Amino acid sequence: MKKIGVAILGLGVVGGGAYRILTEHREFYKTTQAVDISVECVLEPNRARLEALGVPDEIVANNIAEIACDPDVNIVVECIGGVDVAREYVLDVLYGGKSVVTSNKELIAKYYHELERTAKRHSAGLYFEASCVGGVPIIRTLYDGVQSNKITSMMGIINGTTNYILTKMTEEGTSYSAALKEAQQLGYAEADPDADVEGYDAAYKLSVLSSLAFHTKIPYTKVLREGITGVCEEDIARGKALGYRLKLLAVAKQSEEGIEVRVHPAFLKKEHPLASVAGSYNAVFLTGDSVGDLMLYGKGAGDLPTGSAIVSDILYAASRVEPRYSTFKNTASPEKDVKFVTDFASSYYMRLTVNDKTGVLSKIAAIFGKYNISILELLQTPESDKATLVIVTHETHEAAIKNAVAKLNASELAKVEAVLRVVS
Amino acid sequence: MKKIGVAILGLGVVGGGAYRILTEHREFYKTTQAVDISVECVLEPNRARLEALGVPDEIVANNIAEIACDPDVNIVVECIGGVDVAREYVLDVLYGGKSVVTSNKELIAKYYHELERTAKRHSAGLYFEASCVGGVPIIRTLYDGVQSNKITSMMGIINGTTNYILTKMTEEGTSYSAALKEAQQLGYAEADPDADVEGYDAAYKLSVLSSLAFHTKIPYTKVLREGITGVCEEDIARGKALGYRLKLLAVAKQSEEGIEVRVHPAFLKKEHPLASVAGSYNAVFLTGDSVGDLMLYGKGAGDLPTGSAIVSDILYAASRVEPRYSTFKNTASPEKDVKFVTDFASSYYMRLTVNDKTGVLSKIAAIFGKYNISILELLQTPESDKATLVIVTHETHEAAIKNAVAKLNASELAKVEAVLRVVS
Repeated sequence: MKKIGVAILGLGVVGGGAYRILTEHREFYKTTQAVDISVECVLEPNRARLEALGVPDEIVANNIAEIACDPDVNIVVECIGGVDVAREYVLDVLYGGKSVVTSNKELIAKYYHELERTAKRHSAGLYFEASCVGGVPIIRTLYDGVQSNKITSMMGIINGTTNYILTKMTEEGTSYSAALKEAQQLGYAEADPDADVEGYDAAYKLSVLSSLAFHTKIPYTKVLREGITGVCEEDIARGKALGYRLKLLAVAKQSEEGIEVRVHPAFLKKEHPLASVAGSYNAVFLTGDSVGDLMLYGKGAGDLPTGSAIVSDILYAASRVEPRYSTFKNTASPEKDVKFVTDFASSYYMRLTVNDKTGVLSKIAAIFGKYNISILELLQTPESDKATLVIVTHETHEAAIKNAVAKLNASELAKVEAVLRVVS
Repeated sequence: MKKIGVAILGLGVVGGGAYRILTEHREFYKTTQAVDISVECVLEPNRARLEALGVPDEIVANNIAEIACDPDVNIVVECIGGVDVAREYVLDVLYGGKSVVTSNKELIAKYYHELERTAKRHSAGLYFEASCVGGVPIIRTLYDGVQSNKITSMMGIINGTTNYILTKMTEEGTSYSAALKEAQQLGYAEADPDADVEGYDAAYKLSVLSSLAFHTKIPYTKVLREGITGVCEEDIARGKALGYRLKLLAVAKQSEEGIEVRVHPAFLKKEHPLASVAGSYNAVFLTGDSVGDLMLYGKGAGDLPTGSAIVSDILYAASRVEPRYSTFKNTASPEKDVKFVTDFASSYYMRLTVNDKTGVLSKIAAIFGKYNISILELLQTPESDKATLVIVTHETHEAAIKNAVAKLNASELAKVEAVLRVVS
């Protein structure tokens, strides 16, 4: 039977989950996968974590060099997080020809170029299923399930924290700050929630996933990123009444015009398969030229779901004679080689406060007309001497909407209180 | 660059789809997968099909021997359908050490044991992603995405024809026969629809998928199979009013008691992710001990979606040095080695006609009580001297329900008009 020795760097939530799965399922993998996987080493300075998992003292390493030089270790699992130390340690073990499995989306988004080159040079594998969408095997699907397709579009709910907050706001009418506080109390959000609520986490993941889907390196810096901190419960409620649900959506599209990649709050029709993805669940909805629409749905985070992806990578690596590398052009200057679309097409939801006077609506409509924006739905509700106008447009372009908003705000007619994209 | 020569047996809907994808994407696969895949041979006696696809004469083979002996062919795609000729041809090419990719669920469900043994003996690969759920990469997910998990449950809508018919009946109140006729006119159902509507197609697929999920051979003969021919629009409508949607559901569960595998119509709560899988879409919802709930959703049939799965298998095979075999115990006598549960647990929907007299309801309730069946919902509607009683039970067992139905029908109290399982 094939024997694989594993080292785990970092026994936090995800590393601890992987440790538990590997130790509890060792016999199961012998029977079902014909491979004996043993955890040979861990690197974790926190004694409390080691004790909570019941890690035997003899497998606790003192430093990365011990692991890099250990001939019994074939695969190193990196769950340290952050990029500086993680990058250094991953390079150390790749130099020694050991394969790496990581859950670190920021590391992959920022340093894949360098890490893959090093891995190839030393005939080591580099696997990162756990870096995107927890237990959902989206990376394996892009590599080995829909690689027969030209992917034209990918839309995802790929951050559990923001989806929990938006679901709460939608279902219970909670304010953003109250929903965030609850998410923090439940451990779904960090004390410093910026990585999630400002969309950085989703942007890193989208950079990785769109690179694989479109076979070309998409730097995370090219992802248009807007978080959910400015989202107001009033707009969620008004959109809901019109049949929409607000999600933090990651969108990647490829057409003859180029590639567009963006993370921002967006309304989806409630019938869309992604609209009912609630709470901490995640999903990716992609469209290929042969397969058509395909959706993967599951737990986007957590110790065991993400641990499941890590162990899946270990078993996948063990099942292969040669490592499997990415299929994308790992160019050093994607900014030059790839054409990015920034003035993308979308529909828009807008909320305006208008002076409720005769003729105002026609003047507002004229401004929309000036920028070739046509209106799909319009709802006016009176409020003393003002009125609230909610407008959903037909598909138009980003620049047209920005111009119309500037024009409206510069006029005496109306104040634009909120603008949200509507995705179909 | 690696070169792969492909032969396609049968250019019907699926084989034709694979041919089109392979010829149209040849350059794309060179760039993105570093492999040059050429269709070297086809075996298809129907001239019209060859002409419709524009197949050059020089690649049309006269018989299987030409293909089996062709040194330029590495992978043979079997899309003939049926089992006799398909089995013979597949064995012929496996003997020659060529790998096989097939879309034939019946072949895999009935002869996997023999085919896999032959493939291993000749170091050939045997891939069948296209045999189950069209373009949805569920087999790859079981092999390489959730292989780290003990799968406890799998539920699927895995037959597009019946899902189209039931969706039509649910949304428009159409009768079964009218919905079937429409499905036939649209090409979703065969002139002889038995394979689909009697659940054979789903049972073959469930046999294959549950074997992979539970790592042990599950013969299709062990799948409890009930089709949709007896389903009545009245029950669909009454269930719908209670918040349920009727689906032809494939269910596989594994617990300490054993394995249960079944295909039958079942009500699902409308909030269940599977309940909104409509029309010709398919989905598989599985639960693993680490990953939790995971759903894959997409097109379950059609030339290009199923062709996508075939070409994905070809590219997967091309990416490997050694073939990937199934991970299940391919025992010759699974009937003896595996414990199957037949008296499984479920909730039930029942529709009864009752004589509307004082005391009848309490006597009916007493019969349910006798078999320890407790009632979750009850709805009585009057109709002249009779009344219709709709009952949804709490979880009970198959045997208890059968006994209660027999007792009710033998009594003067009521006639049981319909019984349907309710799955949560």
